Amino acid sequence: MIVEIVTTGTELLLGQIVNTNSAYLAEELNKLGLDVLYQTTIGDNRQRMTEVLKLALSRADIVITSGGLGPTQGDITKLVTASLFDLEMKLHQPSLDNIKQRFTFRGIEMTDNNIRQAMIPEGAIVLDNACGTAPGIVLEHEGKIIINLPGPPHELKDMFRLKIVPYLSKKYGCKSVIVSRVLNTFGIGESLLEDKIKDLILTQGNPTLALLARLGEVIVRITAKADTKEEALVLIGKVETEIRNRVGEFIFTIDDGDMEEVVGQLLTDKKLTIACAESCTGGLITSRLTDVAGSSSYVYGSVVSYTDEVKKSELNVSEDVLTAKGAVSEEVAIAMAEGIAKKFHTDIGVGVTGIAGPGGGSEEKPVGLVYIAITGKLGTKVYKNNFNGKRKYIKYRTSQTALDIVRRYTQEI
Amino acid sequence: MIVEIVTTGTELLLGQIVNTNSAYLAEELNKLGLDVLYQTTIGDNRQRMTEVLKLALSRADIVITSGGLGPTQGDITKLVTASLFDLEMKLHQPSLDNIKQRFTFRGIEMTDNNIRQAMIPEGAIVLDNACGTAPGIVLEHEGKIIINLPGPPHELKDMFRLKIVPYLSKKYGCKSVIVSRVLNTFGIGESLLEDKIKDLILTQGNPTLALLARLGEVIVRITAKADTKEEALVLIGKVETEIRNRVGEFIFTIDDGDMEEVVGQLLTDKKLTIACAESCTGGLITSRLTDVAGSSSYVYGSVVSYTDEVKKSELNVSEDVLTAKGAVSEEVAIAMAEGIAKKFHTDIGVGVTGIAGPGGGSEEKPVGLVYIAITGKLGTKVYKNNFNGKRKYIKYRTSQTALDIVRRYTQEI
Repeated sequence: MIVEIVTTGTELLLGQIVNTNSAYLAEELNKLGLDVLYQTTIGDNRQRMTEVLKLALSRADIVITSGGLGPTQGDITKLVTASLFDLEMKLHQPSLDNIKQRFTFRGIEMTDNNIRQAMIPEGAIVLDNACGTAPGIVLEHEGKIIINLPGPPHELKDMFRLKIVPYLSKKYGCKSVIVSRVLNTFGIGESLLEDKIKDLILTQGNPTLALLARLGEVIVRITAKADTKEEALVLIGKVETEIRNRVGEFIFTIDDGDMEEVVGQLLTDKKLTIACAESCTGGLITSRLTDVAGSSSYVYGSVVSYTDEVKKSELNVSEDVLTAKGAVSEEVAIAMAEGIAKKFHTDIGVGVTGIAGPGGGSEEKPVGLVYIAITGKLGTKVYKNNFNGKRKYIKYRTSQTALDIVRRYTQEI
Repeated sequence: MIVEIVTTGTELLLGQIVNTNSAYLAEELNKLGLDVLYQTTIGDNRQRMTEVLKLALSRADIVITSGGLGPTQGDITKLVTASLFDLEMKLHQPSLDNIKQRFTFRGIEMTDNNIRQAMIPEGAIVLDNACGTAPGIVLEHEGKIIINLPGPPHELKDMFRLKIVPYLSKKYGCKSVIVSRVLNTFGIGESLLEDKIKDLILTQGNPTLALLARLGEVIVRITAKADTKEEALVLIGKVETEIRNRVGEFIFTIDDGDMEEVVGQLLTDKKLTIACAESCTGGLITSRLTDVAGSSSYVYGSVVSYTDEVKKSELNVSEDVLTAKGAVSEEVAIAMAEGIAKKFHTDIGVGVTGIAGPGGGSEEKPVGLVYIAITGKLGTKVYKNNFNGKRKYIKYRTSQTALDIVRRYTQEI
């Protein structure tokens, strides 16, 4: 089955946003064994959208659009889709009720133009939008399928996963499958990782192996093709085991799971509680820890100490240490970790102090210098780091390193 | 002049990389006053590339491709381009010398397949690649122009900036420029915003107006075409003023600036300090405040109080209020805001308590219920919110709303 992805929106044509929907859809459709051969982007123009969709329907079996389902005059995708097959637009009462309900819940009055979103080409299957007001549609017509999805990526992804994957899987039986597994590593560079598994890369066949560096971590993608998912997983499993034997300690999760989820699971399993004292990360570590559902059972809280005063009064860091060693020092990180664990009565305490930049650096203590301390029943440990990059990246990299330190510490308990 | 961007590469079709070249080229071409009406992506397949380029040449004046200039068998873009016009491929000696030199410099032997990169369709203008081995080309034929650029983004950008911008500017005199301004609004829904400026949208000409909803905010994009940037800005200014007269209070910044930067500037200008007491946001508000360089001059710190114990011991929230009203209540938000401002001696205190979900909701207090309190010299205010969506989205939306509350409060001081 050949698929064409048609993304719409003037903001894409103007280059004001990067088209992430095409990549997402392409990757997911490939996993289903469907071949994406064309991706087209056009603006909110009726004539050109009509031409492009006609062409897409002539060269593909399935056409998936994103964007143009909203309430404004520029939102024309469903209208154009309907006109391709001479279908009338009809009010879909459940969608309208859903839209009304959302407005009521938020305590806002619904304006009339929102009714447009509940107008559906006759005969279309309506796809409920769990994250927004605009429903999607699936339209089957003379052996072809056209699917209209919303433009905002989180709405599109949610709808694709919940509605389109089951629909297409059922429809096509998906005879051969492509299955990927991602091994997420942290703390090992791309070239060293490549060196450790070079022979596997050079002799790869099925599965294939790919390395990709991004935002301070390196992933290994293992992709296998087989008749069934189970067979593909067996092929992947063999290679994965070999890689784990060599660099297992750096693999913190698979399939792009988050470090905070791994840490959360470990803390839950071991019935441990945690609190953080954050300086240069400004609350980011705790925010990430609390991104995980159920984190209130192990996160007690934190203190963000952006001044020396707060470090002294809240975390019991001594004036003497601050004066002698400076706020960014091993000793202060340790005092912060121990201070917060004592104050909040938690099993684990984390203390972080550093220079996020761009200002505040010196020759002795440059921007990117960060101390991370951890304390608990295995004693107190402290790590010195030198990170490169911009302020937000240094903050992120620090939070990822701190969470990895918690992961390794907790694993040993 | 109408432009079509054709990006090529199997990795794009498989969704393994996001297509940033299209967005870059589109934005730069628009700045030159050229209209990008189509973007197409295809794989390294000769037949489909031929079809797509033929179609592109029929509906556009200028076709710009990216990718497929490398040394491998899969790199066919120049070959296909030549065959469209029945041109022969000829060796371009300066390009070959350049490629050889690069290999020598890196101390690697050049393999023979690299000669492919120096093969050029006869009559083409050769574009030197300062960042890589593959030269690009410009081919003028019967009133149409086709440009082949390399795929790696840094090579493409460099070649576009250094070679294509001067070429197109000279060719078309670039009499007109397109300038956009984005008005970032928060706190007003897409449909209500459209309603307020509907007459402007319906009667738009030059400038054009577009609304776009994303991640809890709505942007208005004003795009003007004029002979000079200055004239375009005058045209934009008139429409912007009219929009500001109607919905100015919701416009928190322009051109996609961040809310935390706006708040940071206000706090700096008014010499005010801030501290936060965060429950459901888990530190996210303070982390965002500290994303801004120089924020250490106004952020003193925060307490993340994820348990009732911490609320009592650190923020002085009374046991009675917690028992009578519950942790998620107006009264607790107020006590948190006042408690943190008092504790950290700041001008402004923010207190946030809510239910981020997915668990923890009840009929009376559903997931998404959030109270945000602010205290300072204008007294204490508290706001009740009902947010939709997943845990991380509720956290983000809460942080954005809290920062907007700080913005509005600070503006009045």
